[in-house]
Amino acid sequence: MLKVHHLVQSQSQRIVWLCEELEIPYDLVIHGRDPVTNLPAGDLKAVHPLGLAPIIEDGVLVLSESGAIVEYLLDRHDQECLRPSPDHPDRAEFLHWFHFANANLQSGFGRVMFFDRAGVPRDNPVHAMLRARLAASLEYMDVRLAGVPYLAGETFTAADIMTAVTLATMRAHFAVNLSPYGGIRAWLHRNAARPAYRRALERGDSGFEPVLD
Amino acid sequence: MLKVHHLVQSQSQRIVWLCEELEIPYDLVIHGRDPVTNLPAGDLKAVHPLGLAPIIEDGVLVLSESGAIVEYLLDRHDQECLRPSPDHPDRAEFLHWFHFANANLQSGFGRVMFFDRAGVPRDNPVHAMLRARLAASLEYMDVRLAGVPYLAGETFTAADIMTAVTLATMRAHFAVNLSPYGGIRAWLHRNAARPAYRRALERGDSGFEPVLD
Repeated sequence: MLKVHHLVQSQSQRIVWLCEELEIPYDLVIHGRDPVTNLPAGDLKAVHPLGLAPIIEDGVLVLSESGAIVEYLLDRHDQECLRPSPDHPDRAEFLHWFHFANANLQSGFGRVMFFDRAGVPRDNPVHAMLRARLAASLEYMDVRLAGVPYLAGETFTAADIMTAVTLATMRAHFAVNLSPYGGIRAWLHRNAARPAYRRALERGDSGFEPVLD
Repeated sequence: MLKVHHLVQSQSQRIVWLCEELEIPYDLVIHGRDPVTNLPAGDLKAVHPLGLAPIIEDGVLVLSESGAIVEYLLDRHDQECLRPSPDHPDRAEFLHWFHFANANLQSGFGRVMFFDRAGVPRDNPVHAMLRARLAASLEYMDVRLAGVPYLAGETFTAADIMTAVTLATMRAHFAVNLSPYGGIRAWLHRNAARPAYRRALERGDSGFEPVLD
């Protein structure tokens, strides 16, 4: 049986959600956070040397990196076309947004969060530039989502899972206002209404309310 | 004819290198940097709304995000098995390192670089924590590369292209010492000796010497 290591309110929600979408049977191991520091309470290094959630165990394989785990599971269980194949008309858009999730959006959020945590004044020019870049990324997403219901096009894909968790879950740790971005907010609500997403939250993050507005 | 927009000494070297490895014919558009600020001199937003290199144009398609472009080109031209297929024994390791490149290594380097640029003292606890995380990532890579010649295993793949450019090119903008990491350094030299890499440098970054030690 697939084992999924999940750190509450983290990127690893992507894996729990994907398992629920594809109805993959899995054992869930929930790792909590220290109530004061918000850091992982246990030692994930006992599971994988990087010590970062998510991690899966599948037989002898121990695999980390959310993008890699998503692709590994899609290799085996993608009966829903959550990763359009190379000949699919949405393939290029899918690839773009799937990689955008970590390479641009998640890392952009992370930089602003760490600058704030380090106490860098918001008028520091580098801090201001990083916030402007993040705003440009959100504006770019918003334009896309004003025209199509999901990032890759007409249908829900793993690119939505990758990005929506950053915005609906990780944003609880940040302070970024999405009120200017009606397209993103409508899409977040569309994703959050999916039964698989509700089941994933109930199982892995009971009591947590996603940040949709 | 495929058109590749390349910003000198940047992540977009990944695309030039991949085209050379797979012998894909391409037109190269080289974008320079401002000699004082080191920022892109021209306006890449005229090509793609995100304004970030790399960008490719293939017929009517305009695509950005290095990971997405690599996958798009592999979909069409991967006669060298640079992306092991789902049934290949190296598949899981390939996926792990391919995603690690941007989600962990490149973003980890970027955070430290921006903290330095913003003038955050190196003894700031968040700055120290981010440097410790980057060191842990390098240590983790080094352990892997002490045991296998390439990240996915016995053969060179696109995961090596993604990570080696971060370490051999982007590191010119940072100040990270790789002397403790003999496995990484030997692997960087192995990659840099590839004829396709030398051709890519000559064509896109003439005069630039990669940082291998």
